[in-house]
Amino acid sequence: MRKVAIAEACMTRFGKHEKTSLELFTEIGLTTINRAGLYPRDIQALFLGNCLGGFGEGQAHMAPFVHSAMGLPMSSPAMRFECACATATVAIRNAALLVGAGVYDIVLAGGVEKTTNLSTSLATRTFAMASHAQYETPVGITFPGVFAMAAHMYADKYNIPLIELKKHMAEVAVKNHYYGSKNLKAHFQKEITVNDVLSGIMVADPLQLLDCCPFSDGASAVLITTEEKAKKITKKPIYIAGMGQASAGGLYVQQDITKAMARKTASKQAYLEAGIKPSDIDVCELHDCFTIAEIIAIEALGFFKAGKGYDAATKRHTYIGGKVAINTSGGLKAKGHPIGATGAAQVTEIVEQLRDEAGKRQVEGAKIGFVDTMGGDFGTVCNIILTA
Amino acid sequence: MRKVAIAEACMTRFGKHEKTSLELFTEIGLTTINRAGLYPRDIQALFLGNCLGGFGEGQAHMAPFVHSAMGLPMSSPAMRFECACATATVAIRNAALLVGAGVYDIVLAGGVEKTTNLSTSLATRTFAMASHAQYETPVGITFPGVFAMAAHMYADKYNIPLIELKKHMAEVAVKNHYYGSKNLKAHFQKEITVNDVLSGIMVADPLQLLDCCPFSDGASAVLITTEEKAKKITKKPIYIAGMGQASAGGLYVQQDITKAMARKTASKQAYLEAGIKPSDIDVCELHDCFTIAEIIAIEALGFFKAGKGYDAATKRHTYIGGKVAINTSGGLKAKGHPIGATGAAQVTEIVEQLRDEAGKRQVEGAKIGFVDTMGGDFGTVCNIILTA
Repeated sequence: MRKVAIAEACMTRFGKHEKTSLELFTEIGLTTINRAGLYPRDIQALFLGNCLGGFGEGQAHMAPFVHSAMGLPMSSPAMRFECACATATVAIRNAALLVGAGVYDIVLAGGVEKTTNLSTSLATRTFAMASHAQYETPVGITFPGVFAMAAHMYADKYNIPLIELKKHMAEVAVKNHYYGSKNLKAHFQKEITVNDVLSGIMVADPLQLLDCCPFSDGASAVLITTEEKAKKITKKPIYIAGMGQASAGGLYVQQDITKAMARKTASKQAYLEAGIKPSDIDVCELHDCFTIAEIIAIEALGFFKAGKGYDAATKRHTYIGGKVAINTSGGLKAKGHPIGATGAAQVTEIVEQLRDEAGKRQVEGAKIGFVDTMGGDFGTVCNIILTA
Repeated sequence: MRKVAIAEACMTRFGKHEKTSLELFTEIGLTTINRAGLYPRDIQALFLGNCLGGFGEGQAHMAPFVHSAMGLPMSSPAMRFECACATATVAIRNAALLVGAGVYDIVLAGGVEKTTNLSTSLATRTFAMASHAQYETPVGITFPGVFAMAAHMYADKYNIPLIELKKHMAEVAVKNHYYGSKNLKAHFQKEITVNDVLSGIMVADPLQLLDCCPFSDGASAVLITTEEKAKKITKKPIYIAGMGQASAGGLYVQQDITKAMARKTASKQAYLEAGIKPSDIDVCELHDCFTIAEIIAIEALGFFKAGKGYDAATKRHTYIGGKVAINTSGGLKAKGHPIGATGAAQVTEIVEQLRDEAGKRQVEGAKIGFVDTMGGDFGTVCNIILTA
């Protein structure tokens, strides 16, 4: 396998957009190609992530329409990937595998989603589609419900009073909003306090409003190519050092949702391939769809031992300057969560960090970054390790 | 790249099923693994094609749920592909590329769809999602409308009286129903006459009811592996000799819909890779979503010159024993069209033909087969050449 590099990575502002998914991705795709000094004719394949376009916008078969709007050559195949919230990361991983294998030299991969056009009642039904339609959705177990259960189980398992855990969870939200306030692309760019979180409306006990990420509109694209071509395109190529993907679909196969088994499997694959251990990671974008999800993730990824990650934000271990900088973009929590775009935006943040271009939220001297995206209720986990 | 083989290929009966997509694919996936004498633990990745599960069954993120239901190992990534009607062929092509590259040794690829649960009014809206949601759907140009226009344009372009063309189109339906009558898995297993077609209700002038394929429920799975492993699994491995995929999304980029530009590009890629020319093909499964679509396809694939394919069925050139046997399964027209499963079922038919296992519809001595699947209104075309 050839060494695979990211030559460019871009994202739109996350939040509310009037444009369609097709327009949003076309715009960011062309921006990415243009920033790399390339032309649409140079793109050999388009790997487009999108989760809800059929349901939300009446647009299936989105990839070839984006392909045409971008003016890519007919010989360049366009296809759509879907793995719930891990959609774009899976598209990027497949693109990287095929560039590594020599099938393509330059692939544009990423994702897009439009969620704010859904009415509130339809939104819950829509997002619940990533749950199991026979075993989960009919009994009313939505994603906030699953993560609320995970919080209760976590508190029980490690004998942490729920009110204590809730304060530490709130500190995760405070951290991620703090970094979101330094990210001009973030959906929410204002700081919040622990009291703001604890006084929010209850969504699914113990998760309050600010424990939950928003759904957003947005797109993000990543240009994946060979080491040789990347060096011609940019002075700062970023390399894909290791990747992993694992599946554990359905809550019914999961022995312990506080452990996120698929994440352990996927991250082990990535660490092994990269020859890197958790303590080597300088900066990590991970799947904080809820505050408790960040706590579960930092443990499953090996940054903290099981049952020891709950107060990491409180102790500032996960801030810049701490043990490992987590979600410097603001994370899903503050940067926002346009489902099919999220993984590509996480990659974009890590690329900016490793290029020393992250401005006010720069992790000084960051050389190794980690991307973690989870689909559904732990059903898919895709991990990518990037190096400068 | 390593030589890639198909060790096993199976499909459910196409037609109306009570089971969900998840159940249908799980069943056929396990059948495929079992017939190959393997176990779920042997499967290194699941590439699942599905087009409408989110909209039609409230089931996005289908791949990891199928993965768990089949008992595949957690380390084996499961992902969903979508390219409208070409969905499963695209999944299979990507699986073959990654097996060829040495990333995986054994991948289960294929697709599933459930369409008969949609109410009639919702069905039209649902299938129209594969049209361009800004430029096509709002002006009411559904797929029957596009192919009706193609028929009119074809008649005009080649100076064929429309009533003559309609009779030749009807002969395509007669042929495909004839072969469908010999296929126990087909949605429609009865023969029809030219008069049946010409006396059917008008769908979109000049297309009458029997010019149109049905939508069906069904699933199909293909086991893709290395030459070495395939030889251990089966006495009759089938090899992937060449593949192609091209994109021309949106009618607005297509200069001439009677030419199907993306198909020319995709098939050229496949022929070149295989070192095979159209006249070498013994048997071909192609995308006859409408009778006129088969005529357009046999020309674009190079079996007949442009403007000369319209009477091929009438002259029995496309029957077994003719120039090239086309759609011996019954095609989409009679075998049925469960969107996300169609490409895998086409591969399954060619595998059976090249193994001399097609029973009453066997093409004697067939050694080289061709698979052609089109997504949307010519937006995606994916081609695979198989050899015994």
